[in-house]
Amino acid sequence: MKRYQALAADIAASIRNGTLKPGDKLPSVRRASASRHLSPATVFQAYYLLEAKGLIRARDRSGYYVAHGAKALPPEPETASKPDGEARPVVISELVVRILESAMTRDVVPLGSAFPSPLLFPFERLGRATAVAMSQLDPWSTVSELAPGSHALRQQIALRYLVDGIHIRPEHIVVTNGAMEALNLCLSAVCKPGDAVLVESPCFYACLQALERFGLHAVEVATDPRDGIDLDALEAAIARHRPAACWLMTNYQNPLGSAMSEAKKHALAALVARHRLPLIEDDVYGELYFDNRRPTPTKGFDGDGWVMHCSSFSKTLAPGYRVGWTSPGRFLKQVTYQKLTTSLATSMPGQLGIARYLERGSFERHLRGLRLSLRKNRDEYIDAIGRHFPAGTKVSRPSGGYFLWLELPGAVDALALHDKAMAAGISIAPGPMFSASRGFGACIRVNYGHPLTARVEAALRTIGKTAIRLAA
Amino acid sequence: MKRYQALAADIAASIRNGTLKPGDKLPSVRRASASRHLSPATVFQAYYLLEAKGLIRARDRSGYYVAHGAKALPPEPETASKPDGEARPVVISELVVRILESAMTRDVVPLGSAFPSPLLFPFERLGRATAVAMSQLDPWSTVSELAPGSHALRQQIALRYLVDGIHIRPEHIVVTNGAMEALNLCLSAVCKPGDAVLVESPCFYACLQALERFGLHAVEVATDPRDGIDLDALEAAIARHRPAACWLMTNYQNPLGSAMSEAKKHALAALVARHRLPLIEDDVYGELYFDNRRPTPTKGFDGDGWVMHCSSFSKTLAPGYRVGWTSPGRFLKQVTYQKLTTSLATSMPGQLGIARYLERGSFERHLRGLRLSLRKNRDEYIDAIGRHFPAGTKVSRPSGGYFLWLELPGAVDALALHDKAMAAGISIAPGPMFSASRGFGACIRVNYGHPLTARVEAALRTIGKTAIRLAA
Repeated sequence: MKRYQALAADIAASIRNGTLKPGDKLPSVRRASASRHLSPATVFQAYYLLEAKGLIRARDRSGYYVAHGAKALPPEPETASKPDGEARPVVISELVVRILESAMTRDVVPLGSAFPSPLLFPFERLGRATAVAMSQLDPWSTVSELAPGSHALRQQIALRYLVDGIHIRPEHIVVTNGAMEALNLCLSAVCKPGDAVLVESPCFYACLQALERFGLHAVEVATDPRDGIDLDALEAAIARHRPAACWLMTNYQNPLGSAMSEAKKHALAALVARHRLPLIEDDVYGELYFDNRRPTPTKGFDGDGWVMHCSSFSKTLAPGYRVGWTSPGRFLKQVTYQKLTTSLATSMPGQLGIARYLERGSFERHLRGLRLSLRKNRDEYIDAIGRHFPAGTKVSRPSGGYFLWLELPGAVDALALHDKAMAAGISIAPGPMFSASRGFGACIRVNYGHPLTARVEAALRTIGKTAIRLAA
Repeated sequence: MKRYQALAADIAASIRNGTLKPGDKLPSVRRASASRHLSPATVFQAYYLLEAKGLIRARDRSGYYVAHGAKALPPEPETASKPDGEARPVVISELVVRILESAMTRDVVPLGSAFPSPLLFPFERLGRATAVAMSQLDPWSTVSELAPGSHALRQQIALRYLVDGIHIRPEHIVVTNGAMEALNLCLSAVCKPGDAVLVESPCFYACLQALERFGLHAVEVATDPRDGIDLDALEAAIARHRPAACWLMTNYQNPLGSAMSEAKKHALAALVARHRLPLIEDDVYGELYFDNRRPTPTKGFDGDGWVMHCSSFSKTLAPGYRVGWTSPGRFLKQVTYQKLTTSLATSMPGQLGIARYLERGSFERHLRGLRLSLRKNRDEYIDAIGRHFPAGTKVSRPSGGYFLWLELPGAVDALALHDKAMAAGISIAPGPMFSASRGFGACIRVNYGHPLTARVEAALRTIGKTAIRLAA
């Protein structure tokens, strides 16, 4: 964060906690510059930013004042979901397809998108790495490195596990066509049609779509918007439904943004081992943390191989390359077989390009920049939502990833809000997409993976206004 | 084919049809050179090649004679298979995995492999095309070109259809992670667990593996080693089993090498339309023809969209890139949905590299060379099998692709032969891999996608000797 941004954040916080009240005059640029030991230009930039956000207003020849519309930050959602605990077949595809299709043109403001801005990724460097890797391709490797994937890439993935203190050998990793394929392979390796699968409430719609395709039943389990699934509820659901698997996102869950503590993950690993329950751990956002270090996934506490850890480079490095992986523990053989018979192998140029890029060691630097961008976006989006959304709107405070979860007040119907937003050229992801029982009718997921431009700010204002009308 | 090879083939044909008999003296190099208008060096090379193949023998200071071991070419298998017509759940995975795994090291002579030599493909040019394509990547395309795939690539695929007289718009093509994924997506788009699917007898084991994974029942239909599935038997099976789909390879079928005539394909297209039966047409070998032109697939006669045509670049251009596609006719929407929820998208570097390569126009030249290499291999392998295998062995005469289908005489057990071959470091593909009812116990598939080196010749000799022992 630059100095002027830090100053602006500081002043914004004072406005929100009431130290500065609407109508209060801000110190002059000159005085602020002296007292804060900053250049006048820096102070001016900060004021300019606060003005652009609508928090302060300039009066001619008189200076800056706290704006009357400046509001406190919206509160966080605090209570865990309360699903009914039933197992049910999933019928979600029509709703999800309708919503995803409506958002698939570039003209739409992508607040409902599942992808961050592609401009955040080092495509040039990756392209050069791919070019070099392909110029050195051993033709025989196209035959010998089929199902488990490129050995060079699996070594790099094993190294990253090792940095996080997790010992996984390259031979225990299967490279896949993105995390989506990894999750599907794990699911089909351990489930047969009619089986029950435990999922979060709410959970990622692609999980529900996979359950629907395989003819599996979803059991939604209570989940807290801050620290994830409720372990007592999980254990009760295991006892009641004898599920074939459990599918969770333990870090920066999509859509909640929740993150389980390490203690909780430790307990979760012990719990699934005790019940001999395969845990499919979707960890695609783990690298996008805003705190000090990568949160250890449940896989890090997995002694007996019940955790099938899935991740990818699609959200961290190389969108479109479709390179993911799984480390499926005791189900390695079954998952490898599923991979062989589903798609045989993962595309070599993508695998080798990423392996080469990782070998060159610039991944960490790129990740640092990516995390800073996303954290900045998060703060600005929460600010903007506070300015534009109806009073009583609750907004999550994710410590990683790029999704906000909003609980709207009153009787706002998220599906109706979606339709009105689309009519204005804006996509949002309405809550019922994330639930087999079509819950969360007053919730939406907002993607903050794109910078808060004037266009995005205007889109948030439009949605906020529409929500205010719908709430009335 | 070079001149000396043509001369050698000519003489070999005379030996086999009896014009030249064992013990006959060949014309001297000088005389042959004069009468054929070839250089003495060319004639000598031809004689040397025939000697290496064991067809002629040099006597000191006397010249070349037809060898006593020189045999007629082995006969072709002629009768169609006679499966029992029952629908049965498929249990094949263990057998197939055991056989594929045993052959997965580079040390093994890959006669049982499903892949041709990787040295037949233009990896350098492809690598350069990929490098250029990735240097021009539009980051936004990684979001907007998800499920159906790169538009540039789909245009190139549509163009190739057009060259063959088939009108398919780019919008009706879904790019997949190889043909394997295309076939799986088509299957899951039109079938649900417990449905019956009609397949050839024998059929490609990956088809059986897919049926097993989806819980589908296989109905094997009589198939002729020359011209493919029996349409009367197919229609009878439709009436009896009310199948959800039919999965066929109409060109150079794996493992038989059979090819359906265009008239038969025309009738097939009409038949499936009449019965409103989805036909999954696996056409990965269609470009590897040895005659004058690409055989039209059934898709070319598909008026009502019942044919789901699947193919890939893996056998023709870019092994390891895992880029295939399907043109699924009336099931476009369902297949696109399956793709979105199975693996979301196909890897961009592979797609864009191939699109760029195709745009540059060197594909046809590469294909011509590839077809010539494979045709030469076919002739040499049939020759060698004639020399080394037990009398009564029947060998198919495929007019494309790279597989021979062998019916062994007597009570040869192909699985036992496989085990003995593996012990000698040679893989073969035993017949029971290709049948849900474990038929074809005396048949094997031989891959001729690798040049007939001394090592391969020795391997064929070893297998032939073992078969002779097992037949006794």
